[in-house]
Amino acid sequence: MSTPTPEGVRLTAEQRRSWLRLIRSENVGPQTFRSLINHYGSASAALEALPDLSRRGGARRNIRIASEDEVDRELAAAERAGARFIGMGEPDYPPWLRHADQPPPLLCMRGASEVLARPAIAIVGARNASLAGQRMAQRLASGLGEAGFSIVSGLARGIDQSAHQAALATGTVAVFAGGVDVVYPEEHRPLLDKILAQQGAAISEMAMGWQPRARDFPRRNRIIAGMSLATVVVEAAERSGSLITARLALEQNREVMAVPGSPLDPRAAGTNRLLKQGAHLITDAADVIGALPQTLAPPTREGFELPSEEPEKQPLVEPASDDRSLILEALGPTPVHVDELIAHTKLSARLVAVILLELELAGRLERHPGGRISLVY
Amino acid sequence: MSTPTPEGVRLTAEQRRSWLRLIRSENVGPQTFRSLINHYGSASAALEALPDLSRRGGARRNIRIASEDEVDRELAAAERAGARFIGMGEPDYPPWLRHADQPPPLLCMRGASEVLARPAIAIVGARNASLAGQRMAQRLASGLGEAGFSIVSGLARGIDQSAHQAALATGTVAVFAGGVDVVYPEEHRPLLDKILAQQGAAISEMAMGWQPRARDFPRRNRIIAGMSLATVVVEAAERSGSLITARLALEQNREVMAVPGSPLDPRAAGTNRLLKQGAHLITDAADVIGALPQTLAPPTREGFELPSEEPEKQPLVEPASDDRSLILEALGPTPVHVDELIAHTKLSARLVAVILLELELAGRLERHPGGRISLVY
Repeated sequence: MSTPTPEGVRLTAEQRRSWLRLIRSENVGPQTFRSLINHYGSASAALEALPDLSRRGGARRNIRIASEDEVDRELAAAERAGARFIGMGEPDYPPWLRHADQPPPLLCMRGASEVLARPAIAIVGARNASLAGQRMAQRLASGLGEAGFSIVSGLARGIDQSAHQAALATGTVAVFAGGVDVVYPEEHRPLLDKILAQQGAAISEMAMGWQPRARDFPRRNRIIAGMSLATVVVEAAERSGSLITARLALEQNREVMAVPGSPLDPRAAGTNRLLKQGAHLITDAADVIGALPQTLAPPTREGFELPSEEPEKQPLVEPASDDRSLILEALGPTPVHVDELIAHTKLSARLVAVILLELELAGRLERHPGGRISLVY
Repeated sequence: MSTPTPEGVRLTAEQRRSWLRLIRSENVGPQTFRSLINHYGSASAALEALPDLSRRGGARRNIRIASEDEVDRELAAAERAGARFIGMGEPDYPPWLRHADQPPPLLCMRGASEVLARPAIAIVGARNASLAGQRMAQRLASGLGEAGFSIVSGLARGIDQSAHQAALATGTVAVFAGGVDVVYPEEHRPLLDKILAQQGAAISEMAMGWQPRARDFPRRNRIIAGMSLATVVVEAAERSGSLITARLALEQNREVMAVPGSPLDPRAAGTNRLLKQGAHLITDAADVIGALPQTLAPPTREGFELPSEEPEKQPLVEPASDDRSLILEALGPTPVHVDELIAHTKLSARLVAVILLELELAGRLERHPGGRISLVY
């Protein structure tokens, strides 16, 4: 049984296990997770349906479902690391992240959850930052920290490091691209210890022990941007990860801000480009605060609410194979919006959602920001 | 007799003498000059009317009118320096300057007038510029020069110097705060010689031999901004002269552009502030060109056209002293628009213009940008 609270609904231990098992299963991303819960009412019911859904979506082999053992091992690893899991909709879940694009259903967290409840500003930038860039990051982080904001960043060298360091006393959140027990870079272990010792937190959507790969960083960056009211880029070269974070912030309707720099410094090429594209020009913490939206309350957006108790399983219409063909023909490698697909096929939204779920679980569908989808070839 | 040409009307030698004598007379600024020509049809007629107008405006002593000797001496000095005078409305007059606020009736010019006919970009900035700032000025100036623009600046140290230097081959214009024979700073004499040797020009509205005072620089800056399609500020501290040039450009509806810099560099404080206020962010010459207005033709604006021959003197209504009192009561130290004054006093525009002319010649009226006026106490 889950316990409703004013700010959300707490998962029972059993629900949390099922959520963890579901999100760790093959081809289940945040969006699929949400669709599954919406259609099946609970993670446990969804887990039962996975093999059949995946087979109907055209999977050539059985879908890999996380085992109970795997879940036990991850829960044990989390306990050893002093980490715990927070489900979307639970009171501790970062409020802005809940309203972001594809929020992680479960966050693994080390440290104090209080820091996650405060309005957050992301400060990101170059790993090979200049001394001036590092000083700027420190000034912004300490000024914003003193103004009551938590500072979110990625624990990387350079700007991230400076931002965390300057916000230790006021509260800072490090978002990991791997498991929360995998400190990257290794040399930042003492910094992480300080963050955790001073009421800060480290969070990740990835499994305990997960070693981050290159593609995990943009995925992580969406969390940095999504949990923050604004993303401030301090120094960034062209084609750098910080620009991805800025783009992801923009796509989630969050403010993008950048610190200007000399056009002769390659580390200012990315920030100057952001400014040309309309990012707020920031030279101090007051600028950041002045450019924030009027209200600091998270935006409301339709999404699933956690059920206060396990609901009845909803009867799920099994799509006819003609309908599946219709969808497959309409889709291709170019991302299209789900609404376009519904309009084009004239199928019900519910039926389309089920077919997409099947395709996704079969590893044949890719989700893009803004509700767009494409086929995987 | 003046000679009409497709682009304007050439002054006769005699007209030019009268113009020079009128503009060098006491209390005759560009705006008064324009009003006088509009009311009296010619500079020579205006010169005759000056003593009477000034007395009616309440002057406590006779207005100082430039003598024929003075004019002879200035013409001789100009000839020795290889300079000549260009009247507003003449074909050589910088086309954008003619449509600026309070264009100088006469410009004294050394060098080649062809460079004045081309669309111009002003590049201005700090005298104590950083090496990076100087490199930026050079890049912008050479890029814009190659694209066909003339580069306008103030021959100062730092940014001005770099801009002129990089535009030597393509054509650059130095605008002086003193007479065109007074090189400031003295160490830039070789630079000036190169500018003049390579089809560039030096111009000034001030008399030959005039030593620039502090207040002459903002006055000069209005010419830099007014003759250019855009003013690009490369490095500028807070409260620097370059920001005055930028403000004057804005007041004349010209584009204002600024190069970003690190917030930790005081020489970027002014440029970053301009950017926050909406100036175009510029990192290369292509940015400048991209931010220019669609058409490079000078804007049209009502103004006096030079008469093709000496017209009849227009009968000038002498205002009643009651009308003068009405105007004096309505005016104060706070600048108000002439149109407000006309609306308030319900006097005719022509009558108000004559009274303002009297007050100005008596040294009792100050003109401000945008057609506003205030009393001098």
